[in-house]
Amino acid sequence: MIKIGIIGASGYSGSELLRFLVNHPGKLEIALCTSETYAGQRIDSVLPNLRGFLSSKFEALDIDSLKDRVDIVVLAVPHKVAMSFVPQILAQGLRIVDFSADYRLEDAETYEAWYHVDHTSTSLMSTSVYGLPERYRDCIRSAQLVANPGCYPTSAILAAMPFVKHGIVALDSIIVDSKSGISGAGPKPSENTHYANRESNCIAYNIGVHRHTPEIEQELSAVASEPIRVTFTPHLVPMTRGILSTVYMQLIEEISTEDAVAIYTNFYENEPFVRVLPTGTYPQTKAVLGSNYCDVGLEVDARTRRIVAMAAIDNLGKGAAGAVVQNLNLMFGFKETDGLKVPGMMP
Amino acid sequence: MIKIGIIGASGYSGSELLRFLVNHPGKLEIALCTSETYAGQRIDSVLPNLRGFLSSKFEALDIDSLKDRVDIVVLAVPHKVAMSFVPQILAQGLRIVDFSADYRLEDAETYEAWYHVDHTSTSLMSTSVYGLPERYRDCIRSAQLVANPGCYPTSAILAAMPFVKHGIVALDSIIVDSKSGISGAGPKPSENTHYANRESNCIAYNIGVHRHTPEIEQELSAVASEPIRVTFTPHLVPMTRGILSTVYMQLIEEISTEDAVAIYTNFYENEPFVRVLPTGTYPQTKAVLGSNYCDVGLEVDARTRRIVAMAAIDNLGKGAAGAVVQNLNLMFGFKETDGLKVPGMMP
Amino acid sequence: MIKIGIIGASGYSGSELLRFLVNHPGKLEIALCTSETYAGQRIDSVLPNLRGFLSSKFEALDIDSLKDRVDIVVLAVPHKVAMSFVPQILAQGLRIVDFSADYRLEDAETYEAWYHVDHTSTSLMSTSVYGLPERYRDCIRSAQLVANPGCYPTSAILAAMPFVKHGIVALDSIIVDSKSGISGAGPKPSENTHYANRESNCIAYNIGVHRHTPEIEQELSAVASEPIRVTFTPHLVPMTRGILSTVYMQLIEEISTEDAVAIYTNFYENEPFVRVLPTGTYPQTKAVLGSNYCDVGLEVDARTRRIVAMAAIDNLGKGAAGAVVQNLNLMFGFKETDGLKVPGMMP
Amino acid sequence: MIKIGIIGASGYSGSELLRFLVNHPGKLEIALCTSETYAGQRIDSVLPNLRGFLSSKFEALDIDSLKDRVDIVVLAVPHKVAMSFVPQILAQGLRIVDFSADYRLEDAETYEAWYHVDHTSTSLMSTSVYGLPERYRDCIRSAQLVANPGCYPTSAILAAMPFVKHGIVALDSIIVDSKSGISGAGPKPSENTHYANRESNCIAYNIGVHRHTPEIEQELSAVASEPIRVTFTPHLVPMTRGILSTVYMQLIEEISTEDAVAIYTNFYENEPFVRVLPTGTYPQTKAVLGSNYCDVGLEVDARTRRIVAMAAIDNLGKGAAGAVVQNLNLMFGFKETDGLKVPGMMP
Repeated sequence: MIKIGIIGASGYSGSELLRFLVNHPGKLEIALCTSETYAGQRIDSVLPNLRGFLSSKFEALDIDSLKDRVDIVVLAVPHKVAMSFVPQILAQGLRIVDFSADYRLEDAETYEAWYHVDHTSTSLMSTSVYGLPERYRDCIRSAQLVANPGCYPTSAILAAMPFVKHGIVALDSIIVDSKSGISGAGPKPSENTHYANRESNCIAYNIGVHRHTPEIEQELSAVASEPIRVTFTPHLVPMTRGILSTVYMQLIEEISTEDAVAIYTNFYENEPFVRVLPTGTYPQTKAVLGSNYCDVGLEVDARTRRIVAMAAIDNLGKGAAGAVVQNLNLMFGFKETDGLKVPGMMP
Repeated sequence: MIKIGIIGASGYSGSELLRFLVNHPGKLEIALCTSETYAGQRIDSVLPNLRGFLSSKFEALDIDSLKDRVDIVVLAVPHKVAMSFVPQILAQGLRIVDFSADYRLEDAETYEAWYHVDHTSTSLMSTSVYGLPERYRDCIRSAQLVANPGCYPTSAILAAMPFVKHGIVALDSIIVDSKSGISGAGPKPSENTHYANRESNCIAYNIGVHRHTPEIEQELSAVASEPIRVTFTPHLVPMTRGILSTVYMQLIEEISTEDAVAIYTNFYENEPFVRVLPTGTYPQTKAVLGSNYCDVGLEVDARTRRIVAMAAIDNLGKGAAGAVVQNLNLMFGFKETDGLKVPGMMP
Repeated sequence: MIKIGIIGASGYSGSELLRFLVNHPGKLEIALCTSETYAGQRIDSVLPNLRGFLSSKFEALDIDSLKDRVDIVVLAVPHKVAMSFVPQILAQGLRIVDFSADYRLEDAETYEAWYHVDHTSTSLMSTSVYGLPERYRDCIRSAQLVANPGCYPTSAILAAMPFVKHGIVALDSIIVDSKSGISGAGPKPSENTHYANRESNCIAYNIGVHRHTPEIEQELSAVASEPIRVTFTPHLVPMTRGILSTVYMQLIEEISTEDAVAIYTNFYENEPFVRVLPTGTYPQTKAVLGSNYCDVGLEVDARTRRIVAMAAIDNLGKGAAGAVVQNLNLMFGFKETDGLKVPGMMP
Repeated sequence: MIKIGIIGASGYSGSELLRFLVNHPGKLEIALCTSETYAGQRIDSVLPNLRGFLSSKFEALDIDSLKDRVDIVVLAVPHKVAMSFVPQILAQGLRIVDFSADYRLEDAETYEAWYHVDHTSTSLMSTSVYGLPERYRDCIRSAQLVANPGCYPTSAILAAMPFVKHGIVALDSIIVDSKSGISGAGPKPSENTHYANRESNCIAYNIGVHRHTPEIEQELSAVASEPIRVTFTPHLVPMTRGILSTVYMQLIEEISTEDAVAIYTNFYENEPFVRVLPTGTYPQTKAVLGSNYCDVGLEVDARTRRIVAMAAIDNLGKGAAGAVVQNLNLMFGFKETDGLKVPGMMP
């Protein structure tokens, strides 16, 4: 029986992880859920969808006793907070999956430039594994510290990677235009998350400075084996969940839409959670709502010699908690799809 | 292996049933899916959330061959169409769960008065079982023909029944004010289902003439052992899924909110899918989204001596496809909760 | 030139008032806008829809200098705060329209029972005028202090009043079931206003204790000349703006839907902002979106002898800022419809 | 008194035009509204927001009698239908503003290639004026036939034009990624406009083949005096109204965000309906909801040497009916802003 402890379990990523885990068929147990805000309250009174599933309470974090309670820690806390916990937890011999950005980047300078904080455990940055199974499946299996990917990067990388790999696109031409629901901003109330500000509204934010940019660049650069810079523009659209990333890439050789789709199909043929849509069909966020799937599709605009590649995910599913379950499955020898073969909710 | 055939599987009720069934742990098989509109097309091209789950195709209905293909037929066709199939299917020795209203009412005259069509198999109206496990669990187990309840009635009956049963409310005082998402209207495009007409909009419809009224009345009358009439007003609110029914009942004796909640708790203590919310907490549709749960809660307004009882369901879940799975489980000896212990999707 | 000062102009009621006033054809001037939060910032940077309309800045409130700046003060501050300003402002000889609840109720005990605060200027409670032109048009013209009605009460009173007046409904039978958008909660971020909590969600709140209840009761009691108690249940539905109130009343004599509609038509025939919908047509919030209209309609449920009366308003329009403009027009001798003949925004 | 006839007045563009016109201060009259679907019905029963504004009825179209009824015809019919009417109407000596695409393109071959229909009055294509006042104000004043711009092109052209004009962007680098509400698809029910398919959903459509592409290209090419091709990807997001277009352009010289904003400011300084947002502020659709404004803003991504320029419009306002009013004002010598100085509706 694998005992899982979730630090910060009352946020959206944490609670979505609970929603996945209560249906996980494997020998695992939700042994500990901490929450700063709700310590002492029953989980299912805070998260009413889980009523009848979890009768235990959120606890306060006692970091020193983690090893007595759990085998694996899932950190669902903000960046900077995560790195204040990680070294101590690893020192207890525990494995970690970290939702935060603190160990996604390999390069401390890049981290500090984009996050404007000092990194306090830079040596772990190179030993951590970027938790994208479609890239690092084998490393994840044995990793001590898995850095769960960001939601936008998951969509952007999965959309672009096959073409970067095939070398048919100009590496300086990549533009990622993403449309996201608001749940990525977390449950904390703000002007930004106010219903009245999001309903009937569409706006871009953090253009050129969004912190997911270096993550996309790091991974696509690794695929290309040369440095890539991307223009990344996130937008908020009136949805709670879902990201659609539209990725524009200049072609350096001619290719038909059919052949480009075939590149997708070949690239992802063994991937259980990347679904390649047939020619003429485009990804839509609703098809992956609440699931761990990433749907990819594309169109070649021959007139302007560009690939328009798209990926749709649920930012809380494949973009967060679903990916954590997939990583946990790999790390503990469960079937990779355990607890995750759940279709999106349509309509 | 139980072989299930779904007639009209591409509609919202049918497709939601598929979404539940692909995760059912029991020995059952989706052996046949028919669709008038999509016959010949792959199920997962029509229903993109199911991509990777079902590679078979929708077929045209060949009613005479059903017995060679399936053990049970789920009818997901409109009222009137259902009764044109049911006798033939039963004659083949097959069992049926019928989504439609054709066999919910026991009284043919009532049916004809509200539905404005002649009933062509009135004798079956008395042998069919109303598929509300919370009322007819044992009958459902052995039923040949189960009439799956309407979505509004499920919510209204579950909210009101315990108090009608306890005899503490005036039977002529019941008012049901329901708020529903648009998916109850089905996938067929109409002015009514146009996004621009539903978004930012709230309106009542079919006041005094909605066909779910006699269904609510029949069941509450049976509970009370005397005839009950209710005022029922359905409203459309800007959601795809979900019904919240607010039920007003005049008290004939004083009772506190706590004691009224205790009546709920006692009444539903063994029910796996009715969750009684604690005093001071009210049902919300989002907590049951995509699930088979019905959350009930209430407040006593002592000043006006009324109970304000509320029930929240997903109209496609407990209000349709989830209830079908629950009924199938009962009919075929699966665990009643098989395939249904799925939390609602929040946020 | 009438100089208007708005205290608390950056909230939803205040900013909607600005939206109405920039198109008012009368000789009036927005002479002062205060905001605690945004003092010193340009109005049109805080309220980007008003860019190009107002280049002035929000100011801090200097209550003693109001008389030097304005002729009329509109108070758009919460209850309790309002009563801390009103006596001083009146003492400066200025007239007031107060968005808050502090002077809507005539009875201090009732106020204190529902609002749980002491009222510090009870004598003004009897001299203030309830700002519902459909009831108190003449008094408003000459009033020093107009208490602008609550949003829910406006809808409930306008829906029920004609039938209470005609004496055809049982006075102890009135139930008001209201569905509201979230903007009534104001711009302050909270768990309640978080997009993810409101989207795809419907829930009741404050059952039996909502502070608009005594306001509805006061006005309907005045119409009936005897005390009336109502059950009032507000609900949140996924909209930014709009209230639909469904009012149930037991008939004490038989009446057809047509005749009941005729009562509406006669009652409101000279009202510029109450639109009676023809038989068979029901009010919808979208038809009044952004406007000062209240649409009313009804259905008689003969089977249960009840009137189901409905009113739709924009809670920020006729339910708040539109009503203020209507009151200002009356108080200063403008045409009552000046600045308000604006249709709702459909689709 | 200018008499306006609207052909196809019950659609979204037509009805929005009515909403603008009922508040127009000029000497103009809505003399005729035709509707194929609703001929014979009162306008305000079909369009309930207009109740109390228009008591006349929709009529059937009698094209030969137009000259006896009106001075100007606004065509709110689909492309291809428009060109079947235009020559006859012009022959009666009437002026026309055409909502459709039939006379927007100058080149018949281009039209036929993108619209897949033969153009039956190609000679008029060169005499018609593209109704974008920001480009062709003077020509519009005297035009007989004004082709009202498409909604996407309006946003894309206004966002990109100043930089194309200044010659600081690579002309082969322009990518337009647009996010639109569903009202652009019109009121006709379809799978695409079904609430359940649009809510919580985001999807691209018509990539590389959307008919607004040649319109964007024609106008930007004219500005640049050399042929330009753009990649244009429209997306549907869950809104009724609003378009946000994000336009990516490769810089051919370095420029700061501040200086790029200054280019906007200078370019649009005399434009009454283009509002340039200050550095660090981005356009949002809600700020222009229901209005004739186009908000533009930008960010320079220095790392990748791209301008990310954005424009927000209401597709039914500045993207359709608002632009028609602006054009009518120019054509008939009204003040250009008459009837249009209405702020967007926030929240």
